[in-house]
Amino acid sequence: MPPSEQPLRDIGENRMVSRFRQLAGAALTDGVLLGPGDDTAILRLPPGRVALLTCDMMVEEVHFRRAWITPWQLGWKAMAQNLSDIAAMGGEAGFAVASVALPGTAEKSMAEGISEGLIAAASRYGAALVGGDLVGSPGPVAVDVSVLGWVEEGVALRRRGARPGDRLLVTGALGASAAGLHALLQGRQGEDDPHLRQALAAHHEPQPRLKEGRAIALGGAATAMMDLSDGLAADLPRLCAESGVGAKLFLAQVPVAEACRAVAARLGLDPLSLAVSGGEDYELLFTCPPEAVARLRTVVAEAGGLLATEIGEIVSGPAIIALDSEGRSVPLAQGFDHFASRSG
Amino acid sequence: MPPSEQPLRDIGENRMVSRFRQLAGAALTDGVLLGPGDDTAILRLPPGRVALLTCDMMVEEVHFRRAWITPWQLGWKAMAQNLSDIAAMGGEAGFAVASVALPGTAEKSMAEGISEGLIAAASRYGAALVGGDLVGSPGPVAVDVSVLGWVEEGVALRRRGARPGDRLLVTGALGASAAGLHALLQGRQGEDDPHLRQALAAHHEPQPRLKEGRAIALGGAATAMMDLSDGLAADLPRLCAESGVGAKLFLAQVPVAEACRAVAARLGLDPLSLAVSGGEDYELLFTCPPEAVARLRTVVAEAGGLLATEIGEIVSGPAIIALDSEGRSVPLAQGFDHFASRSG
Repeated sequence: MPPSEQPLRDIGENRMVSRFRQLAGAALTDGVLLGPGDDTAILRLPPGRVALLTCDMMVEEVHFRRAWITPWQLGWKAMAQNLSDIAAMGGEAGFAVASVALPGTAEKSMAEGISEGLIAAASRYGAALVGGDLVGSPGPVAVDVSVLGWVEEGVALRRRGARPGDRLLVTGALGASAAGLHALLQGRQGEDDPHLRQALAAHHEPQPRLKEGRAIALGGAATAMMDLSDGLAADLPRLCAESGVGAKLFLAQVPVAEACRAVAARLGLDPLSLAVSGGEDYELLFTCPPEAVARLRTVVAEAGGLLATEIGEIVSGPAIIALDSEGRSVPLAQGFDHFASRSG
Repeated sequence: MPPSEQPLRDIGENRMVSRFRQLAGAALTDGVLLGPGDDTAILRLPPGRVALLTCDMMVEEVHFRRAWITPWQLGWKAMAQNLSDIAAMGGEAGFAVASVALPGTAEKSMAEGISEGLIAAASRYGAALVGGDLVGSPGPVAVDVSVLGWVEEGVALRRRGARPGDRLLVTGALGASAAGLHALLQGRQGEDDPHLRQALAAHHEPQPRLKEGRAIALGGAATAMMDLSDGLAADLPRLCAESGVGAKLFLAQVPVAEACRAVAARLGLDPLSLAVSGGEDYELLFTCPPEAVARLRTVVAEAGGLLATEIGEIVSGPAIIALDSEGRSVPLAQGFDHFASRSG
């Protein structure tokens, strides 16, 4: 059989580690004094910065299905969602390590594809994959990534900090990733449609908003920020809880991605629900005083050509009230819970 | 049912994350500017150091069985093996993040136990758990840890650097962890015997050699170092390959742990094989010129009261030759391979 189809159990750990070093070693950055292959990487962080550290794991049958996502996309997405956490602080991404669990029956090409996707996403955003752990699994594939970044001290934006009267903004448009997921759930991924392809790409190859997050943080006026990983309906309450505030969410102002509208129509789903409750958009949710809205929208547009949209207002008290176009309060559907019985 | 026995799917992610923040938040260190609960942690590294970054994952049925190890021990071990990688560079451990995958049917007490074990091991060695990701799993429990440490520039010891004529040394004694594993495999864990308890503790609660590793690196004369995670028989060839050298291993000089000898006798196994091929001892393997052996042994003893033993010699050429007490060459059994068919 061709080498790429050889199962890992016949190749052995040492040879796979060598291959990983070769792949990752070709994409190292200046700060990497020692890359993959030793007990740890050795890294130089830029002076005068504080470090940012985060991790996120993707597990088969919980976060993805193997039949739906290519190994390359799995690697990309696992890296991208961590980079998105760095973006949400206003930081720069520097270095990443990744642990990959694969059954011994998995093919060499799968391990390579995941590695290449991890490296591609890191490189795209200026970071380097500097180490990893490739381990066996009794079944499910799992990819866990940790990213080390940095930011000027005092510049990072936390979830805490939003104040009553602040406006609530979001970068880009929402719902495309959820539309892609629902297309997969309905078995519609093979259909030939450009919006469907966009939605699937949004779901499998998210683009973390590092330039935008950094511009918002350096802009000086934003009071709180986070990335939308579990959906506005799950994540907005987290930002509010941290800040000790409530919010009004103007549903008619939520920017629904065009791919979301088109695919939702094909699938018979409500596009707004996908945009509000869907999750995995990896756009940035942030707050600022009313007088800073225009400037921050400009700053975001100049950073990456993306719109930032005002979608609500911070209020005192814990309640989060979603209002429809006629000002009527409507219930906010729940977002993704990792331990809920349904799996996506 | 009591709260600790509630399954995670009935508790929800937000409440478990709150509990994790409470546990980890109580054990933060000075450098933690922002601990768990936001998009990333914010950390201050000591000035004038380079950073060390590593990750290691443990997966149920590959690295452990749920019936054999308590959640606390699983957390401890997952953290300890990462700290051991920092030790192997001669560094200091600073901060850790951990991703934990658990089935929705797992009890709250399991998530808490793992967290407490992670935190206990980090705290024991001066590090703080600053973030995490708690995700669902379709079956196996998995714990992946990343540790961020640091070391003075130029002080870190790599696997590369051993030279022909150097002596090969190991800290502590080997084989107790493997003896514990074999006792578990034979169902003997319930027997009342102090050596058996020691072997099981060595297997489940390894003690990374941070003080010793640092003393060896600061001692100045060592040429290469790594930690023994997969066993001397698998790890020595890695050090030699990186250094472009071979080695003679004097089997009669390999320090076999007393618990290994006693448990091996009970189980009818060869203690030397366990010590050489067993793995998971997390002792340090290092090399130095002959004239530095005595001083480095003293340095190790003063750091933590541990013996360092000379077990071999670096030679030119790629061959690794194991010699018995009569100077006869004997084959070196293979160590642990993550993708080999057998599982430990």
